[in-house]
This record gives sequence, structure tokens and C-alpha cells, in this order.
Amino acid sequence: MVASPADSVAGLPWFLLDDTLKSWLSEDLGRGDQTTLGLGSHRCGRGVWQAKAPGVVAGLPVAARLFHWVDAGVVFAPEVAEGTLVQAGQAVAKLQGTTASLLMGERVALNIVMRLSGIASLTRQYVDLLKGTGVQVVDTRKTTPGLRLLEKYAIRVGGGINHRLGLDDAVLVKENHIAAAGGITLAVQAIRQRIPHPLGLEIEVEAITQIPEVLACQPQRILLDNMTPELLTQAVILIRKTHPHIKIEASGNVTLANLLTVAATGVDYIATSAPITQARWLDLSMRIDDHLTG
Amino acid sequence: MVASPADSVAGLPWFLLDDTLKSWLSEDLGRGDQTTLGLGSHRCGRGVWQAKAPGVVAGLPVAARLFHWVDAGVVFAPEVAEGTLVQAGQAVAKLQGTTASLLMGERVALNIVMRLSGIASLTRQYVDLLKGTGVQVVDTRKTTPGLRLLEKYAIRVGGGINHRLGLDDAVLVKENHIAAAGGITLAVQAIRQRIPHPLGLEIEVEAITQIPEVLACQPQRILLDNMTPELLTQAVILIRKTHPHIKIEASGNVTLANLLTVAATGVDYIATSAPITQARWLDLSMRIDDHLTG
Amino acid sequence: MVASPADSVAGLPWFLLDDTLKSWLSEDLGRGDQTTLGLGSHRCGRGVWQAKAPGVVAGLPVAARLFHWVDAGVVFAPEVAEGTLVQAGQAVAKLQGTTASLLMGERVALNIVMRLSGIASLTRQYVDLLKGTGVQVVDTRKTTPGLRLLEKYAIRVGGGINHRLGLDDAVLVKENHIAAAGGITLAVQAIRQRIPHPLGLEIEVEAITQIPEVLACQPQRILLDNMTPELLTQAVILIRKTHPHIKIEASGNVTLANLLTVAATGVDYIATSAPITQARWLDLSMRIDDHLTG
Amino acid sequence: MVASPADSVAGLPWFLLDDTLKSWLSEDLGRGDQTTLGLGSHRCGRGVWQAKAPGVVAGLPVAARLFHWVDAGVVFAPEVAEGTLVQAGQAVAKLQGTTASLLMGERVALNIVMRLSGIASLTRQYVDLLKGTGVQVVDTRKTTPGLRLLEKYAIRVGGGINHRLGLDDAVLVKENHIAAAGGITLAVQAIRQRIPHPLGLEIEVEAITQIPEVLACQPQRILLDNMTPELLTQAVILIRKTHPHIKIEASGNVTLANLLTVAATGVDYIATSAPITQARWLDLSMRIDDHLTG
Amino acid sequence: MVASPADSVAGLPWFLLDDTLKSWLSEDLGRGDQTTLGLGSHRCGRGVWQAKAPGVVAGLPVAARLFHWVDAGVVFAPEVAEGTLVQAGQAVAKLQGTTASLLMGERVALNIVMRLSGIASLTRQYVDLLKGTGVQVVDTRKTTPGLRLLEKYAIRVGGGINHRLGLDDAVLVKENHIAAAGGITLAVQAIRQRIPHPLGLEIEVEAITQIPEVLACQPQRILLDNMTPELLTQAVILIRKTHPHIKIEASGNVTLANLLTVAATGVDYIATSAPITQARWLDLSMRIDDHLTG
Amino acid sequence: MVASPADSVAGLPWFLLDDTLKSWLSEDLGRGDQTTLGLGSHRCGRGVWQAKAPGVVAGLPVAARLFHWVDAGVVFAPEVAEGTLVQAGQAVAKLQGTTASLLMGERVALNIVMRLSGIASLTRQYVDLLKGTGVQVVDTRKTTPGLRLLEKYAIRVGGGINHRLGLDDAVLVKENHIAAAGGITLAVQAIRQRIPHPLGLEIEVEAITQIPEVLACQPQRILLDNMTPELLTQAVILIRKTHPHIKIEASGNVTLANLLTVAATGVDYIATSAPITQARWLDLSMRIDDHLTG
Repeated sequence: MVASPADSVAGLPWFLLDDTLKSWLSEDLGRGDQTTLGLGSHRCGRGVWQAKAPGVVAGLPVAARLFHWVDAGVVFAPEVAEGTLVQAGQAVAKLQGTTASLLMGERVALNIVMRLSGIASLTRQYVDLLKGTGVQVVDTRKTTPGLRLLEKYAIRVGGGINHRLGLDDAVLVKENHIAAAGGITLAVQAIRQRIPHPLGLEIEVEAITQIPEVLACQPQRILLDNMTPELLTQAVILIRKTHPHIKIEASGNVTLANLLTVAATGVDYIATSAPITQARWLDLSMRIDDHLTG
Repeated sequence: MVASPADSVAGLPWFLLDDTLKSWLSEDLGRGDQTTLGLGSHRCGRGVWQAKAPGVVAGLPVAARLFHWVDAGVVFAPEVAEGTLVQAGQAVAKLQGTTASLLMGERVALNIVMRLSGIASLTRQYVDLLKGTGVQVVDTRKTTPGLRLLEKYAIRVGGGINHRLGLDDAVLVKENHIAAAGGITLAVQAIRQRIPHPLGLEIEVEAITQIPEVLACQPQRILLDNMTPELLTQAVILIRKTHPHIKIEASGNVTLANLLTVAATGVDYIATSAPITQARWLDLSMRIDDHLTG
Repeated sequence: MVASPADSVAGLPWFLLDDTLKSWLSEDLGRGDQTTLGLGSHRCGRGVWQAKAPGVVAGLPVAARLFHWVDAGVVFAPEVAEGTLVQAGQAVAKLQGTTASLLMGERVALNIVMRLSGIASLTRQYVDLLKGTGVQVVDTRKTTPGLRLLEKYAIRVGGGINHRLGLDDAVLVKENHIAAAGGITLAVQAIRQRIPHPLGLEIEVEAITQIPEVLACQPQRILLDNMTPELLTQAVILIRKTHPHIKIEASGNVTLANLLTVAATGVDYIATSAPITQARWLDLSMRIDDHLTG
Repeated sequence: MVASPADSVAGLPWFLLDDTLKSWLSEDLGRGDQTTLGLGSHRCGRGVWQAKAPGVVAGLPVAARLFHWVDAGVVFAPEVAEGTLVQAGQAVAKLQGTTASLLMGERVALNIVMRLSGIASLTRQYVDLLKGTGVQVVDTRKTTPGLRLLEKYAIRVGGGINHRLGLDDAVLVKENHIAAAGGITLAVQAIRQRIPHPLGLEIEVEAITQIPEVLACQPQRILLDNMTPELLTQAVILIRKTHPHIKIEASGNVTLANLLTVAATGVDYIATSAPITQARWLDLSMRIDDHLTG
Repeated sequence: MVASPADSVAGLPWFLLDDTLKSWLSEDLGRGDQTTLGLGSHRCGRGVWQAKAPGVVAGLPVAARLFHWVDAGVVFAPEVAEGTLVQAGQAVAKLQGTTASLLMGERVALNIVMRLSGIASLTRQYVDLLKGTGVQVVDTRKTTPGLRLLEKYAIRVGGGINHRLGLDDAVLVKENHIAAAGGITLAVQAIRQRIPHPLGLEIEVEAITQIPEVLACQPQRILLDNMTPELLTQAVILIRKTHPHIKIEASGNVTLANLLTVAATGVDYIATSAPITQARWLDLSMRIDDHLTG
Repeated sequence: MVASPADSVAGLPWFLLDDTLKSWLSEDLGRGDQTTLGLGSHRCGRGVWQAKAPGVVAGLPVAARLFHWVDAGVVFAPEVAEGTLVQAGQAVAKLQGTTASLLMGERVALNIVMRLSGIASLTRQYVDLLKGTGVQVVDTRKTTPGLRLLEKYAIRVGGGINHRLGLDDAVLVKENHIAAAGGITLAVQAIRQRIPHPLGLEIEVEAITQIPEVLACQPQRILLDNMTPELLTQAVILIRKTHPHIKIEASGNVTLANLLTVAATGVDYIATSAPITQARWLDLSMRIDDHLTG
């Protein structure tokens, strides 16, 4: 199990995540779990992770890997697939190993799964609401520092799709860039001269009047920021007329309440940071069921 | 400014945090901010951070340090002290530097301050509600992996106090340890033989009937877990009668709704993970006001 | 000088490169330069870097930063701007500091600048040959492990432009991916469902007959691999007819000898790894001119 | 295979190289291979590495280890021993694993083997030319930053021998040191007082007239730098007369064209950086032959 | 064996120590053991570790782990349990593996075990002398930088117990803190407001007259520093009278000569740095008994 | 002061040591000095380091650098030069800074200087005893893991000289290597074929009868291990007769008691691990003299 990416987060080789995972365990263990080590016991036990509230589970492969680093002898077996909507009381995973090892890894492993599941759960609400509209939920770069890859993974587990993973995998020309360059066309020209040529390019638009100049720049994506539904509708029509293959994204003040109204404007994507910045953790707990002789 | 701990998070030397801060910037920058670098511009500008909702600000020293690593020429000047309750629209900090550097550091710096301020804001609600009761809000080890020190700092900024920072700075004997050792007394004896002797020791109690045995173990703290207000009150009376100097902590299902009821039982501390697991990010944004010649 | 990205490689904050630079110095210094330290001398001296052959200089900011880590008291002053074509015997940079520090940093600093300048020099030959054609030279992912960012920077210094910086900043669908998915359309559909939506997408084409299906997939770029000039011309005409905004790239067995023939086919970009895999180092040396009293 | 040094580069324990190898994979993968991961496929396949030009192969154990870190399930089986002269079209290694893993490791693994094989190939040309002369080819400290150990290994695979691995494993007293100390004898005395006593000591000589003083210093090696064949011959005779056990090394402007002339002067070693600074990469490519069900 | 904490140092997960262990091997190996690698031999051999003087053995699990990183094929089998008092000539561990691997790991593994065993041996002398008194030997924070956890482990192996592991796992209010705060009570109040509440608190007392104020602060421990046996006796009586559960520790100028005198004062713990700062290494050596065909 | 190697340990650039120094501070600080931070005070103070016993001081530059990382505002000014023999009560260094910073750095800085000074002090005893004999004291590879460079520096401060710094900077052919190769000549031949040619080569001799074969191998050094003074004398005469320039080293069971006897045998060097393995720490302490307003 240890080294294969097949059971990792979205197929990423584990070595990309391992240093981070170990730093999290160190953060909690410090110089060692004094309570557990103080017991001096190495009995084997069985544990179970249970949901204490309904939600969408995300991050179990990370939990398994964390326990691996605590003790390669611990078996962490998910009871549900990533993305499953579980009910309160439902078993999420089963564990077996020395109670010392189960207790040393418990908190960190639960913390990350509770956080990621909270994100997946709220994403799922947005995604479910949009079902049938053909519009997709997109995330932003508002993510917890240090958790970018995993929180964006949780968004996908919840059914959303990712915007840029960082500042280097696509260009997004915003108001400040345009101001710095002295105009949209100047900004795009300057950027196109310097960036790796295969990079995707998206331009943020804040007013309908900018659209003709933007279209002339041939971006792959247009981001309509902070527009009313009426303006969004106008903008979509204007873009589609001549550039039907440009994907259109709306952002700004999106909530579950206005989501369908925004979707009705005809955009392809609705961007929101809410599943990251507004999500509560999904409550999960570990119970050690019984103690084996070991 | 760079190297003095006096302006750091709670006086910690910066070198303890720097690797983490740099890894956060790397996470966002990847191989470089293609949009900003593509502009090829190094004009100087002024920025301002504004609150878009009311809340308690925490983490500005971290933001300053992040910008330092992006570009030591950036000046990040807080407009409010840590822990200030700001209103929507209020300026939180002012910045000056090249627009390239301001844009490269913006997202990571805002992300951490928004998260920490969200925690401080919710903590403050709990703390304010308890004002006059003499009872204190305590956090738990449910923290975002990688953010333990900073999230616990935000709790303190909000007015709460910290429980253990990790598994090594105090002993907390819980149900699973008691089960593993075959009883409270046996667990405490085993632990006391092995741990560094100055460590504090706290015992978790789930039933009133355990209290006499617990008291005989002479813990510094007792944690009453998941008890009704009635049971809490009984437990407090029982403990205080003979051991007035043992501090008593209540935990389990604490909400803003039942907080005062729990406080009325006479405990010293109420532990809750809510300010970490339930907090929404405080909404902040950066505006680049004007461009200086540079 | 130390911390500002303005004088860095393409504006990157130095912290992104510093650990690598320090590891290079460690690789050479090991437990210390025994010869230099053995002298026990700290006299100040002046050095000069000279070209011993004509070429395009690249990497001087990296050299300056390397000497900074050896000794912040060393002054490294470039005599020419990045990208300058220098002649044999021409001064490239002047240095001042203790001779011990100059000698400890010399080899590593020269090594990287010689390598990068070799790349920039060969790139310049390709770029100069294409002058007036409107076709641009593009690099590949064939770069020396550990030097990706700097070698790609040297390509830009030489006048070329970069293809992807890594496997994560754009999608390039190649033969193996198409085979794995069971066809071009299936591959593109699968990928579009999972990737961050703003990513650019390029498809590699090995036969003219694949082009209609490729065009239907709406890629931003098409890579024509290993085609004869005749086939390239046909492919370009076919693509331009209906999709004038798709950028076209040719790759495979490009040499200085056939470069103009390939350019004449009407492609936008010619990709070649030659400036990386075929370049010889530009010969540079350091002379310590005189010894100051210090 | 994983942890034994027996199959490593020259018997080095793998842990000495692993962090570097992982950093190379990270450099290419960034946040993940979007194209491959986007396919979502985990079919197994077989690959083959083929030479596209004749040359001496070096670095296959490194390739095997790189794939190990991508996915411990990949089997990388060399078809030829290190140092084998292969022909264009010849199979160099066979691979088996998921196509995703083969594609994720391909580029980095090929890049390092192509670079090292290029070095080994050019070294072999120098070595072959000297066959029968008893003179040996020696490298220098002109190596690609970050690749010192592996490039020096490739030199050995090609049949050359190594000079110092760094500044700490032997003393080489050069012109600048002599100038700084005020003379050869003064320099050697100062150094011998401070260095670890078992270190080898070599002195660089630029004029015949320096030789008597150098010999009086009892170095283990003498380096004759930038001398004509006539001067080299004189110097060798002068040294051998009284100090037959001192090894003599020639350096400066050595090419394949003048190699035998230099060898004929009677020196023991000819030092040249050419196999590092002048080598082109040996062209290798990976073909995925077929897809297994998996 | 590799990853289980059960055979680690006091049950700590190995990942907490591995980076340190690898850095130690790197420190000795540098760019490789030239003597051993120069032999080019991979014969298998058997080794034995022998004590050359009597002492208490500590650190064998660390030695086993070090050899694991050199070569996972090496078998390191302790012949005695941690804490065993061995005699000169007694076998301490047996090893099997290639002679190359045994030689590459030998020095570092022996160095750490000799150091830790030296500490355990001297600790044991203190502990044995106190047998029957009920008083325990406690260490201090005077430990070799980088070895804190292992040296404190050796103290426990020798029969001592640990004081704080660092500055964060308990509070110890000393003279300088009291001076800075303006008094004992002020210092304790200030600290109690800010620290994690479960932390243990100990106060250092230098004069009998401070004791009433100290007792009013309700510390868990009192440290009597640099007092004569007479004063210690007085202090113990004073404290026990009203606060029988406060543990009392004596420190300052403790030697084997005056240990029983101090113990007779009635304190619970005697703190001394002697087992760390005064211990000589226990002499151990490795002999390679025979060479197997391999 | 920060970045110049001139005030470093033997002229080493600080970046080579900084990660280690920071890890030592982290080891002690953990998540922060709770006692000091709990005080919440930032008053400035003056401290003095005093010797509590006579000895040779070593390591003050390391102490200065440690305080720099705690707080760049701390001034650490040595009162004596490295290598000074100080008396009990003598001031060793003066400090100024916030009391918080002085207290946070105190323990680690003192620990390393006490350890290094202990080594320098014992080395000085050996060196002083040999004064006038022309024989030099040499160390071994028995050093505390993680402290190799600094402990070897302390040996030099004490007046000794260093043997190899690691396994890669010289070859030392010992009994096990000879056994593995099947003889002295075979071992040396095998090694000379593979190692970097400028490396020094030393052969360990355990019997007079081995010397002729050893001399034929032309080593730079011969190590006479575990011989009686009589045998040493014979060996020295035998070697000197034909190979006066080979340096001769004696090792094995050297003590202060037999040092002059060994020296009288005519060897050049006497190797001993005693200054590392037998040294007690030199007792030093910090006093904070007064508190400044700050």
C-alpha cells in the first residue's frame, strides 16, 4: 500500500505529500505522546471511525498514510468510498493496530478528514443545487495555507471543479494588472511575450464595455466579476455571439440563495470560495472497540 | 523588523515559523506568478487591506512577515492592533512596494489573516458571553494540520486560553488510556513513572462515580466530559469540597446557546473546538489605491 | 540587494531559489575549502570575470546571490546586462571581497553561469536565424534535473520562449495518452472533466488524418510532431482554414540546418531541445587582479 | 531493491541521493501531471527505452530509483550494464507498471540518463584514444551544480578517473593561494598547519622555475597548468629525476586533437573538463509498447 | 522492523528521528566512504560489538536504525536488552551484512551508543546510590545540542527520570523571571494568564523566606536551588506542613559524594546534570569475525 | 556580523551551519519558551557569561550566531579570544538584549560552548604535555553525532590537529579492508583504481612484519595501531630509514600518563579520542546583571 500512487489522493505519488504529512504528525506529537507512551502498553486494538453528522467524506487515503507513518503495522480500512454521503452514526473506516499507535495518529488523521469532508459536504450542496443546469461550481485560490492541494481535491470529491492550482498554471488578468499595464490589450500583449506559450489565459471583466477589447485578445476564458444577473446575461449574449468557444465564468457574492439565478444567466462556471471559507468541519470520532491480546 | 521576536506572534523567534511561511508562498507561487511576472512591471504602488465584514483581526504580524519574504522592500503597516474588533469597510493595514510584490504576496497573506481572524472573531463571541462569570474558554487539539501554533494564537487573540499545544506538554488521561491500563489508578501510576516529572496531569471523567478515585490520584486538572449541567454541578461540588485547588474543565457539545448554563455549574474552564471547527473566515480584501512612480 | 526580487531571475522572489543555491555551494564546499581556509588569510582583493570565447551571457544575478551566501560582504557587479553578446576577453563582472570568499564561491558561480550562457548562446543562434520569419523558438521539458527554472530562464535570455514549465501548468495530449484513452476525443473529454478548467490544452498530432478530430476538440495549441516540411505545410493550411486562432507548433529533429525550411511551413512555433541538450558551456574565468589591504 | 546500496551508484547508500531525486521529480510534476491524472486511467503497460544514437550508457540505477519514488510498483530492468556502448535502436531498459506511473517518471529519468550517458560517451573517446599510453583522463570541479556526484560517477563509467570531489577532500594550491600567502613555501606551510593531516596536497605549477621550490614542499601531486608539450616534457624530467613517486598531472586546453601529444610528455594524468562542459546528451527515448489489462 | 515504533526509542515513531539519523550518517560519509567503496567488494560478513569496559548499554535501537539506512539488508541483533550492565569483553550486538555496509555504518552507530551508554552508566551510579531512599535522580536541560531526546532517553535507561524536555512542556519560574516581573506572585500571575492551562508549574526557591509566597502560588513543584543540607531540611519541613502534595526537588552542586546527604533532607527529587556533562563514553568496538561468501 | 564568514568557525560560511543551529534552538524551544513568553515582558537587560572553573574557551562565535537567530537585536560580545585559558570567575562574554531573548537562547548557547570548551581544555592538556617534543595530538572520527565539524574545531582551538573529517576526505586502509581484499597490496591497488586520485592514503599497521609491504605501497601516512613503545620505536626506525617523508602516527590506548613515552618513540602524530570521549564540560553560567529600561 505504501508507495503506490493508485490509492493516493487523485493519483499523486505519495512522496509529494509525505513531508507535509510527517510535519503534521510532528506538530501534534512534539517530543512524543507522553500520555500514551507513559502507559508503556503495546496491546493491539480495533478502532472505528464514525460520522456524528451527515456529510460527504473526503480524505481517507490521507488518514491511511498518516497512520502508516506513525506505525506501518496499523491497518486503516475505509468503509466507504471517497465522496460518499454518510449518515450520522455510520462507520467511515475501521482500524487495527496497537492502541498506542492508534492514539498517536488519531487526532491529526481525524482533523484533516473532518476539514476536507466539511469542504466536500458544502461543495456537494452547491453542486446538487446546480444539477441539470449544466453549470459547474469552481473554486478559487482562497485556501488554507499549506492545504491547497488537499482542499482543492476535496472540492473535486464534492463534485466541483478546480480553478488554477496556483499562480503559475494559468494566467488570470485582473483589474490591478490592467491598471499596471495601462489597458487590457497592453496587459495581454506584455504577458503573452513572456509566459510559457501553452498557458491558458483568462481575463477578468468588470464592465460590459470592456468585453469587445477583451474578445479581441482571444482569451480562453472570461471571468465576469461582481455583475448583477442582468449584466451577466447581457455579457454572456455578447460573448457567445462571436466567440461561442470561450468559456465564461461568474464570480462575486455567490451564495446558495442566489446560485440558480446566476446559473440562469448562461455562464459555464460559477466561482465561489464558500466551500473553503464557509465550511464547518464534518464531525467524526474514533472509538476503540476492544482490546486484542498482542 | 525582520529578525526581532518582539513583533512576532506572541514573541516567538521568527525562525520557528519562517520555513512554514515560505512553504505557503511556494504553494501559491509554484514556479512564479506568471500573470504578474508577465507584465514585466516594477512600478511602486500603495495598497490597503479592508474588512468587508465586522470581526476581530488576528495574524497581521504573519502577513508582514510573508510580504518580507516576497520582497524585503515591501512595507506592511497594520492600522489596528491584534485583537481589534473592526467594522466593515475599516482599513486593517496599509502596504507600499512594487505592485508585482504586492500582488505576489496578496493571496497567501490574506488567506491566513482571514482564517485566523475568523477564529478570533468566533472565540470573542464565546468570551464576551462569559464576561462576568469568571469562566474561561479553552480550545482543543482539533486544529487545522500545519496551523496549530497560529490557530491557538488566534484563540488567545480572541480572548480564549489554550489547552495543550500538543501531546507532549501535558498529560491528559482519557477513557482509552484508562481502558488500556485497566483502571484510573493503574493508568496514572504507569504514566507517572515514565513522564518528565514536571508535566501537568489532567484526568477525564465521564461519570460522577469515578471522581473519588480520580481525586486520590492528585491530578492538577479534572476534565468533565459530556455531562449534563446537573451532573456537572454535582461533580464540581464533590471536587471542591476536598480539593479546592484542582481546576475543573467541562467539555462536550458546548454551543453559544448552552454556554451560560454550563458556566453556571461552577467549572473553571469550558473547552470547545467550535472557534476552530465552526468559524467562517473573516472577509478581507486588498485594494491597490494608486501607482507611484518608481 | 539581498531580498528584493527586482534583481532576481525574471523577478522571482529569492527565497524560491535560495535553498537550491545553498545546496550547490555545499556540494562544492563540503566541510569547507581546506586550501583557502588553510591559508588563514582574510585579505581583500578584486576579481574580474572574463569571457574566453564569444557568447550570450546569462545567470549573473544567480552568481551574485551565490557570493552573497558565501559572504554578504562580497560585491559582485555585472559589467554587462543579461543577454549581452560578449567577445572573448571581455569583462563580464567585477568582484570585490576577501580573497578567501572570492575563492570559495568562484567555481560554483562560474559553473552555473557558464552552463546558462552556453544555453543562451545556442538559443540565440536559432533565434537569429529565424529573425524576420515571425516564427518563435520554443524549448521542451528536456532540461537538466534541478535546473529547470534556470535553464528555461536562459532560453528566454537567448530570445526563445518557454513551453510548459512542468507537467502541471498545461495539458499536452500525446500518443501514449490517446492510446490509453482509446482515441483523441475520449482522451480530451476525460482530461477536461478532471483538470483545473483554466489550463491550456495542446494536442500532439502525428498524422494529417488526425487533424479534423483534433480541431473538433478545440485545443488552444496543436503540436505537429516529426512531420516532413510538406506535411507540415498541409497541416498548417488545414488548421488555419477553420481555426485561425489555434497556435501551431512543430517539433522533431529540428537543427540549425533545417530550421528555415521548417519555419517556411507557416507554423507559429518551432520546438527544440537542442539549446539544452546540445549546448557547450560558454568559457569564462575569474582572475584576481590585485590584493587590497584589509 | 529499494534500500540496498549494492545496486546504487558506486555503492553509495540511497539515502544520500534520495532527497535530490525526489526534488527532481517534484520539479517536473509540480502539483501533479495534469494530462496523465486527467485521463484517470490505471492500466498497466510495458515500456522500452531505446538509444537513438550510439553511446555509452550511464545512470540506469538512478532511473530505477526515480521510478521507485513515482510508484514502487514499477519494474525498471536495465537491458545493458552501466558503461555499455550501445548502438542506435538498441534497447537500454525495459519497464512495466501503470501507464500513468511510466508517464509521470519518464521525462526526469530520461533526462538524467541522457545527460550522464553523454558525459560517459565523451569520456570514453578520450580514454580510448589514450589506450596503451598508461596516461589517465581526470575530471575537474567544472560540473553542473547539483550533479557533482553523478557527473563524476559518469566520468568513471566512461573510464576516466576523478580529481577532487569538492574543496574539502584534498588541497590544491593554485596561483591565487600562492599570491595570497606570498610564495609557494609560505602557502604550503600555512596550509599544513591547519588542515586535517591525512589530506593529499597538490601544487599547481605554471613555470618550470617554480618546480624546485615545489618539490621541496613534498606534495603528493604536481599539476602542470597550461604548458606547451615541450615545457611539460622538461617539467616531467625535472620532477622524475628526484621525486619519482610524485604523480604528475597536466591541464589546460586539452582536446581530442592534442591529447596524444600531451600524453607523450610522460605525465600520469591529463585533466580536462571537456566530458562535462562539451558533451551533448545521448539521445534516448521511451516507447510504451502495449497496454496490459490491469 | 523498519517502521514500527514498538522497537524504537521509548515507542517514538521512527519518522521523528529518521532525518536526524540520516544527517549523522551523511556527516561521516560525506560524498561516500572512499576506502570501502574503493575496495569494490560486496562480500558478506558477520560482526560483533563488544564492550571494552563495564557499563550500562543504551541506544541499540538507534544503532539498528542507522544500519537500516545504510543498507536495509544489514541485520543488527542486540545481544542484551537496553539498560543491561555489561562486562568488559561481553558481546553487545551481532551484525550480518556486506562488509561494505558494516564498515560504512560502524563509526556513527558506535559513537551514539558509546555516548548514550556513558550517560546511562553514570546515571546508574547515582540511582544505585539512592536505592532505598525513595529519592529520584532527575536530569536538566544541559544536554548536547541535537541529542536532547536521546540523552534524556539514556537517563531513563540508567534509571533516572526526566525533568522538562524543553522550554515548552512545563513552566519553571526562576530568579531571572521573578526579577523581570517584580516578584514571585506577579511572575506567576502573569504566566498563568498566558500559558496553556494544563501546563505544570514549578518555582525555584533560593531562600527559605521565599517559601510562604511560593506556597500561596500553588505550584505543582518547588525547586530548592543551591541550599545547604540544613536549609533543605528546613525548607522541606516548611513545605510539607501545609502542602504535602507538592513535590520538592533539590539542585545545585550535587555529586556522588554528597548525594546521600542531600537525599536525607527529605526531598523527592535530586536534579543533576552530571550524567550528561561529566560522563565518559562507554568503550565499545566492532570486530568483523569472518567473511561469508555472498 | 550576520553573514560574514570572517567571524565564523574557522572561516566557514555561516549558511553551512545555520540549519543545524536553528534545529538546536528548536529542540529546546519546542513551541516556545512558555515561562518567558508567559511573563509578557520585553525589558532590556545585560548579561554576563562567567567561567565557574578554569579551562580553554571554544565556541563563542557559535553562541553569538545562536543568539542572532533568537533575536537579531541581541549583542553577544566575547570578552576573550577563542582558545583563551580562563580562570574560575572570569567573564567570558557580555550580552545585551531583551531579557526574553537572553533567556530563550541561554541554555543552547551555553550547552554548546560548555561542551566545546571541555574538549578544548582536555586537548590543551595533551598538547601542553607534548610541548617541545615536536609531536602533535591528532583526533579521530569518534565524535558526537551531529557535532563533527564543531568538535574537530574545538580540537584545533585546544592546539590539536585533525585527522580525517569524514570517510571521504582521505583513505585509511585498516585491518578489515585488508582482510576483505586479501592483503595490503591488493587492497591498496583496488582502492587506487577507484578513488579520486588526489586523495591522501594512509595504511594502518598492526605488526612490524607488515611494514615492508606497506612501504612498497607508497602511502602518505602510516598509522601504527596498538603497539608497545618498543615496537613503535622499531617501526619508526624501519620506516624512516628508507621513507623519511612518510608521516607516522601512533594510536591506541593513549593517556596523559603514557603520552610522553609514546612521543619518545619518534612518531609525528599521536592519535587519541580522549579529548572527545573523556572530556567533561567546562562549567559556565549566565548571570543577568541588571535590567535596562527598554
